[in-house]
Amino acid sequence: MSKERLYLFDTTLRDGAQTNGVDFALEDKLEVARMLDALGIDYVEGGYPGANPTDTTFFSKKRTRSATFTAFGMTKRAGVSVSNDPGLRGLLDAEADAICFVAKTSDYHVKLALGISEEENVESIRQSVTAARDAGREVLLDCEHFFDGYKANPDYALACAKAAYDAGARWIVLCDTNGGTLPEEVEAIVAEVATTIPGDHLSIHAHNDTEQAVANSLAAVRAGARQIQGTLNGIGERCGNANLTSLIPTLMLKPAFSDAFDIGVDVDSLADLSRIAHRFDELVNRSPNRQAPYVGASAFTTKAGIHASAIAKDPRTYEHIDPTHVGNRRQVLVSDQAGKANLVAELERMGLAVARDDSRLEGLLREVKERESVGYAYEAAGASFELLARGILGSVPEYFDVDSFKVEVERRHNALGNLVTVSEAVVKLTVGGERLLTVAEGNGPVNALDKALRKDLGVYRDAIADLELIDYKVRILNGGTGAVTRVLIESADASGNSWFTVGVSENIVDASFEALNDSIVYKLLREGVEPAA
Amino acid sequence: MSKERLYLFDTTLRDGAQTNGVDFALEDKLEVARMLDALGIDYVEGGYPGANPTDTTFFSKKRTRSATFTAFGMTKRAGVSVSNDPGLRGLLDAEADAICFVAKTSDYHVKLALGISEEENVESIRQSVTAARDAGREVLLDCEHFFDGYKANPDYALACAKAAYDAGARWIVLCDTNGGTLPEEVEAIVAEVATTIPGDHLSIHAHNDTEQAVANSLAAVRAGARQIQGTLNGIGERCGNANLTSLIPTLMLKPAFSDAFDIGVDVDSLADLSRIAHRFDELVNRSPNRQAPYVGASAFTTKAGIHASAIAKDPRTYEHIDPTHVGNRRQVLVSDQAGKANLVAELERMGLAVARDDSRLEGLLREVKERESVGYAYEAAGASFELLARGILGSVPEYFDVDSFKVEVERRHNALGNLVTVSEAVVKLTVGGERLLTVAEGNGPVNALDKALRKDLGVYRDAIADLELIDYKVRILNGGTGAVTRVLIESADASGNSWFTVGVSENIVDASFEALNDSIVYKLLREGVEPAA
Repeated sequence: MSKERLYLFDTTLRDGAQTNGVDFALEDKLEVARMLDALGIDYVEGGYPGANPTDTTFFSKKRTRSATFTAFGMTKRAGVSVSNDPGLRGLLDAEADAICFVAKTSDYHVKLALGISEEENVESIRQSVTAARDAGREVLLDCEHFFDGYKANPDYALACAKAAYDAGARWIVLCDTNGGTLPEEVEAIVAEVATTIPGDHLSIHAHNDTEQAVANSLAAVRAGARQIQGTLNGIGERCGNANLTSLIPTLMLKPAFSDAFDIGVDVDSLADLSRIAHRFDELVNRSPNRQAPYVGASAFTTKAGIHASAIAKDPRTYEHIDPTHVGNRRQVLVSDQAGKANLVAELERMGLAVARDDSRLEGLLREVKERESVGYAYEAAGASFELLARGILGSVPEYFDVDSFKVEVERRHNALGNLVTVSEAVVKLTVGGERLLTVAEGNGPVNALDKALRKDLGVYRDAIADLELIDYKVRILNGGTGAVTRVLIESADASGNSWFTVGVSENIVDASFEALNDSIVYKLLREGVEPAA
Repeated sequence: MSKERLYLFDTTLRDGAQTNGVDFALEDKLEVARMLDALGIDYVEGGYPGANPTDTTFFSKKRTRSATFTAFGMTKRAGVSVSNDPGLRGLLDAEADAICFVAKTSDYHVKLALGISEEENVESIRQSVTAARDAGREVLLDCEHFFDGYKANPDYALACAKAAYDAGARWIVLCDTNGGTLPEEVEAIVAEVATTIPGDHLSIHAHNDTEQAVANSLAAVRAGARQIQGTLNGIGERCGNANLTSLIPTLMLKPAFSDAFDIGVDVDSLADLSRIAHRFDELVNRSPNRQAPYVGASAFTTKAGIHASAIAKDPRTYEHIDPTHVGNRRQVLVSDQAGKANLVAELERMGLAVARDDSRLEGLLREVKERESVGYAYEAAGASFELLARGILGSVPEYFDVDSFKVEVERRHNALGNLVTVSEAVVKLTVGGERLLTVAEGNGPVNALDKALRKDLGVYRDAIADLELIDYKVRILNGGTGAVTRVLIESADASGNSWFTVGVSENIVDASFEALNDSIVYKLLREGVEPAA
């Protein structure tokens, strides 16, 4: 049976950037675009060129391989010709495959916010779409406040949409801008619009203000729309946009949709979804939502109780899908037995075969629980977990011993009278009986400490020459500067491997040192280096 | 026009207790029951008496005034008489107004988990309901796996439900236990069931595994169900239960429901909803979800430049409801997304009246955008924004001048041979011509710097005596330890005010210093302190 194509449009980098507390640096945008591209999203909306320096730079070249790279912006202003509108000019200059214009389609908003006539607004839509088409771009029109506008004045809302469609816009995007529309209203209105504009040219842009953005998106698809706009993990202005991370598995795994539609995401990418969702949270420095559908750490976690017997007989009786399809895993918190089974599986994955009745497992489990209760996060720091496990189940070589360190940050006026800050670290360590003393400057206390520690690790120098810190994250676990600090470090080497380590302390320098230390030891262990005699 | 009554059933203390990471003490249960009672919830399910000591104690007396206090438990086991089943006995002994039995209604589960015949299961339902009715209790039956069971074998699922209804159960609760059912399936199945059991005896119990628990609940109501089961803030096993905190405002404020139904919550309680939601998060020690519909801190927060001008003209243009109805408030954020209208509105709120064509606005806007492009986040740091704005539009007093500072962190072995880390800061500053030199120790470099800076601010000491740092957040804006660091500090004082400041630098100590400095200056400014001569 042939299926219809349903398209996904991601606006994480545009509407998602409206999230309170989220702002993307250029590097963040590049990484998100790569993630979305690899996932198989059809359209990546990268931002609003001209609105701020980051977005303008981002659109200086095409940033996706397969996804349609899309620039967002307003239709031309009324009373200005297409060629004299700097905003439109900026959009056409952007290196984008497609342009998504936003225009008001509610007569009330046209009057109130723009202060122009209804016909002027329609004309502005028509001319903007035409100009973008003439410039060789695929065109989308975000119909702002479409549902509210349609309820008040269906003819006008439709006239705006129709003008864009007739001028050659590929997609007419019906936006529930305020997020207050209910699924049955969305379904009814989209069905009506689809009698004028074909459904395979209609898109839905829903917000989560009644916690129904996902339901609204699916209601629109049922009524004929063939594109969904949404964001990773549902970020977005106010309560967020439709959550693509929830929608993708539903579209691919629920027969009501998977029997009818193909989307651009394949099963391998779907199996990477949990990882992508967590990586994205890391990137925007949000704590992952444990209860997130499909990808949350608790999404397939059962506290058993009355379910225990059925779960023991057939786990699928309490799961609506197989968690491995989305790269997640089952967890049953029935007893310590379940925890132990998990642990054994985890150890096996890292090449440590341990019998399930090995008494050392209890000790490791206890240690992990204790450490996690004070702030360690081993789920996010596999390398530190491996060192801990190897230490308890066997041994980890003592490669070196840091006797002491001192970090100094000084801000003062230099000879020219300018304020400068200098960071310096001194590390004293013993390697194979030899006492070493190193000093280094850095652009901050942790950077200086990292440099000093790695500067002269004697016999190990070659083995760690290609070690690089690629990310450093700090989370304060309670309030105030006196609280406990957790540092997560991501390291990588020339062979493309990367690993995560963790440190926890009241003192950020101590916590950083612990994570740096773990990273170096892990690298030496993996290289199979023998400890210096 | 007379409306139909729609009932709310809260299972926060029962299904909510299955949430990974949530554990209610007796005191917690008492407080939650009081909150729900005051809110106007019809049924409060308090737990499973007999399953654990806390729940048994909780049911030693009635814990609600107006809500129907409900005990949860299993129907009697097959092969045991009603009077010989200790579980059922415990339920009947509980001081509850109502008993909510759970029973399997899917033939597969009856076979797999219970290993009894289909008829034995129906008989057990019938006898349990009858026994509870005879004991004077109102009775509900949670039909476990109802939707999956109905899809596989509608006759059997319906037979179980019908047996309870015929035996006098007030409510037949259709449970989507695995949470995988879609709204259109819920609507169709509930409508079919309602041809056998009247809708005003049908209840819906939905889970959020496809992010559609709210939509599924409302779909059931549209199909005739007249009771909704859910939890505060949507807590619950795996991805959570239907979120009553989202459902209540939708039912009361959206005409599609408010024109047709009355619920037990009144407008005054609705206006208390945001407070209740936050109080509940505190109680279970979760960070409130800023993006939560209706009650989240960001639910009515706009950052968009293109939206801000319309909001200034008529706030309702970007709000689906008036935030005060749910005890929330509107917020317009300043950020690099901001337009001038946004800025002027924000300045007005802080008491700085500036004409829209004032040329200094351009300068301020440019400065904000430039600073945000290197990492400042003024939307999250209103106090730093106010200082920046006052500096550009007028002036900020020079209260003090920090000439230099030095921070030292040293880890070494103490006299006992233990590793200890000591942090110390020295600050040199000038206040009103007087040169001051202070030193302090802290449990980290930033804590030491904060203490040293505030230790002896001479004449200002009294004015800042009640200043307290209550949160400290660090974000690394690029990868690696050499990247730019953004520090956000939340401060508060004895009068209950709190404010946010930001600092950005390659060096975490410098960034922290900047945010600390802003916090003190802001406090002095707000206290109306005159700078020392």
